[in-house]
Amino acid sequence: MAYFSTAVSEVTEGIVNLRGYSLADVMKDATYAQGAFLSITGRMPSRDETRLIDAILNSLLDHGYVASTITAARYIASGNPQFIPAVAGGILAAGSNTLSPEHSFHLLDHTAELRGDGTLEEGADRVVDEYVSARKRLPGFGHPTHKTSDFRADILFDRAAELGLVGESIRQFQAIDRAFRAKTGKTNIPINIDGALAAIGRDLGWSANQTVAFAVLSVLPGLMAHVIEEIETGRPLRYIQDGDYVGDPLTKTLKN
Amino acid sequence: MAYFSTAVSEVTEGIVNLRGYSLADVMKDATYAQGAFLSITGRMPSRDETRLIDAILNSLLDHGYVASTITAARYIASGNPQFIPAVAGGILAAGSNTLSPEHSFHLLDHTAELRGDGTLEEGADRVVDEYVSARKRLPGFGHPTHKTSDFRADILFDRAAELGLVGESIRQFQAIDRAFRAKTGKTNIPINIDGALAAIGRDLGWSANQTVAFAVLSVLPGLMAHVIEEIETGRPLRYIQDGDYVGDPLTKTLKN
Amino acid sequence: MAYFSTAVSEVTEGIVNLRGYSLADVMKDATYAQGAFLSITGRMPSRDETRLIDAILNSLLDHGYVASTITAARYIASGNPQFIPAVAGGILAAGSNTLSPEHSFHLLDHTAELRGDGTLEEGADRVVDEYVSARKRLPGFGHPTHKTSDFRADILFDRAAELGLVGESIRQFQAIDRAFRAKTGKTNIPINIDGALAAIGRDLGWSANQTVAFAVLSVLPGLMAHVIEEIETGRPLRYIQDGDYVGDPLTKTLKN
Amino acid sequence: MAYFSTAVSEVTEGIVNLRGYSLADVMKDATYAQGAFLSITGRMPSRDETRLIDAILNSLLDHGYVASTITAARYIASGNPQFIPAVAGGILAAGSNTLSPEHSFHLLDHTAELRGDGTLEEGADRVVDEYVSARKRLPGFGHPTHKTSDFRADILFDRAAELGLVGESIRQFQAIDRAFRAKTGKTNIPINIDGALAAIGRDLGWSANQTVAFAVLSVLPGLMAHVIEEIETGRPLRYIQDGDYVGDPLTKTLKN
Repeated sequence: MAYFSTAVSEVTEGIVNLRGYSLADVMKDATYAQGAFLSITGRMPSRDETRLIDAILNSLLDHGYVASTITAARYIASGNPQFIPAVAGGILAAGSNTLSPEHSFHLLDHTAELRGDGTLEEGADRVVDEYVSARKRLPGFGHPTHKTSDFRADILFDRAAELGLVGESIRQFQAIDRAFRAKTGKTNIPINIDGALAAIGRDLGWSANQTVAFAVLSVLPGLMAHVIEEIETGRPLRYIQDGDYVGDPLTKTLKN
Repeated sequence: MAYFSTAVSEVTEGIVNLRGYSLADVMKDATYAQGAFLSITGRMPSRDETRLIDAILNSLLDHGYVASTITAARYIASGNPQFIPAVAGGILAAGSNTLSPEHSFHLLDHTAELRGDGTLEEGADRVVDEYVSARKRLPGFGHPTHKTSDFRADILFDRAAELGLVGESIRQFQAIDRAFRAKTGKTNIPINIDGALAAIGRDLGWSANQTVAFAVLSVLPGLMAHVIEEIETGRPLRYIQDGDYVGDPLTKTLKN
Repeated sequence: MAYFSTAVSEVTEGIVNLRGYSLADVMKDATYAQGAFLSITGRMPSRDETRLIDAILNSLLDHGYVASTITAARYIASGNPQFIPAVAGGILAAGSNTLSPEHSFHLLDHTAELRGDGTLEEGADRVVDEYVSARKRLPGFGHPTHKTSDFRADILFDRAAELGLVGESIRQFQAIDRAFRAKTGKTNIPINIDGALAAIGRDLGWSANQTVAFAVLSVLPGLMAHVIEEIETGRPLRYIQDGDYVGDPLTKTLKN
Repeated sequence: MAYFSTAVSEVTEGIVNLRGYSLADVMKDATYAQGAFLSITGRMPSRDETRLIDAILNSLLDHGYVASTITAARYIASGNPQFIPAVAGGILAAGSNTLSPEHSFHLLDHTAELRGDGTLEEGADRVVDEYVSARKRLPGFGHPTHKTSDFRADILFDRAAELGLVGESIRQFQAIDRAFRAKTGKTNIPINIDGALAAIGRDLGWSANQTVAFAVLSVLPGLMAHVIEEIETGRPLRYIQDGDYVGDPLTKTLKN
């Protein structure tokens, strides 16, 4: 048995077999949203799914400076004005505090367990009770700028509804939202884009990592634009202007 | 003046201005290929340009194990089975030996200088003479697997021709190809996908870094698929089976 | 309040205050092992601790090709022959399957909980029972090459004993080792270097992340040597020679 | 022939041969500065060289917020509070604008060419004339905070002199400094730490990449301390407070 094996693609002279399709055909007859879906999930999306994927992939195209990914990438490019390291470094900032639909995805997995044979409303009640009583933040909810509603989540849910692609995960996430508002009275912590991506991705049959893959693809054009902008017009060697030292005063001595 | 400034986007509550367009509109009415083009270049592509961009973005969807990016990413995921670090690490393998259309791009810049007021053929002759006499490899030519022709380059050039998007850079690159074959007699070093991307990108008005941006977007779905495959079905802690030690024998001693 | 604050250092013209010490003094009168300890933990090590730290920092200097970090870094350098991206990419391979003393560290935290007011032996019995009955691998045990004993772990434990630096964590880890051998009869799964680092680091007062910091420092010289070797003498564009395609045959067609 | 070969180390059961030495011996009898030197360069340093290496490795232990590496790493940790990705990302910021002694190293290579059979002073005159007339910044000179003198460079040069380790590269760099001051009258652009590292490393027989390796090792303890501090006490999801949008107003519409 070979040391590595893959079901993604096979390359021979003049031919690339991508998930059972000829890459030449994909180049000629598919959009990139379709090609990306095929590569990541192993199947071609339907026409309706394609329309939803385009909206998903456009949802995070850029978010200005309100993103640790962008900021990290620009600081890297400021020290090392090269495209590749800064793009890679920006991606590394995706994690539990940003660009991490996997946490909302796992919330849905956990809700399904809590719910058992109950209704979506019962699942929502149980998970909200658990989080509220433990004073934990619900993943997939809230945004520093978009306080009453995250328009990107709204558009994706609307698009999924138009296209008949609303499944149990979207309905469950929306039930969690209603339960949260009812139990806490808070109206400024709406479903955010990470939550929407997780719910939609789960309904499309994606795994948590596949959902993150689409989220990362979506942020990359903006991230790349910022890196190029920093290389071409930014300041060399940026550093933090607004930092305090709160450690020990300079009073210690070595007595080796 | 603010410490950072950007022309990419601006975020206020409920609104993202992306390059002068509302992100809500882009989500509703544009494909991802269009949204990515807008983010990276600052303008919306025409309908014909969009068809070419989809083919470009599909051209590198995957290339099996014949890619250092994929291999690097799988080894990272084998040690650290997390999605984000492995994807970022795979991108870091893009450089002078792979996935680097910037070198072909600079070849075109250099050819333009050598050519001056001459014809495309004169420019091609001069640059090929320079490289052949210095025994340097011409960037954008040759592939370890696709020996007689790189079908991905061929499809992109055909598509550009159909859509009326062939400009001086494509013609110049094809003239270099003809001059190289004529002067060396070699027929197994065709224009490769990096060379095609550089020529097409330059004709679309892209900078070298913008061309690399599209190339990186194109490889990402396959790279991501390999990372997920390695995490889910690969071997933990892969290491090299086929390595020789060629250093000093174990005969030295410390005499501190 | 400033947006950032730090207790690591403060820089003013001609002076760097590092954790309360003048960097000039540290440069003049401290070894690097001491300087690194000061930076990471906030205090200067004692003379005995310094001797142990030097051994710790030398323990992972290189491990040939039996390391995903090295392999990943060499594949990156093969595609992109630059020092910085390959070193950074190699570090990214440190995770749950390699170079991750944090897992052994958390095993000790968990054992302390299971143990409560009991003896070290009782703690060891409970944690081994839990892992063995759940058929989970105990972190910090076993190595693909060093089957009967990991000499690096042995040397560090011996050095700690000589220097009087054996604390409860080392004793607890050794009790777990005895319990594991007694309960399973297996003698080819010894305490490995990750386990030793975690136990020693915890006895030195380090946190899990601080322990990982020393482990990463220790592998870097070898990682860097491999990257330089690959750039100077390696093959451009390495790819996997030994890979199988196990996916769909090339039979699917697009019907857009 | 094996696909990979290395002169760094060889691993067999119970034994690691590191550059001809037993890793067990290195752990027992060498300091980390010696072990790192051996791994990276292939030979053990002398006792005097060891004292210089310790000072080199302590020279960049931390530089507060006046470093793009630190800032980038903290922004990454703010989004993704994990140790490994943030450390790797911080390293990626090392490049032409910071932590890049390779540029000073190449300046010395270039000066040697310009100098030919001339004196160090003639080499210095020629290279300074070239840079000043082209209005290019001399690599290895100047610092945003340390204006009259970079104490780290001064201490390293003093230490090298005490230990009899001053060679032609140090003397050449100091001659360039004198020529620069004489020709420009500027006294606030002293030799900085990058310049000192390059000159000293070249005299020790290091290559440019080996010199960068020691510089990266030196910054890592501080970088790691900042990452841990950000994870434990920093703010989740930092973003830029002080950014201006200077692009197109939100007036464009899609007409698909």
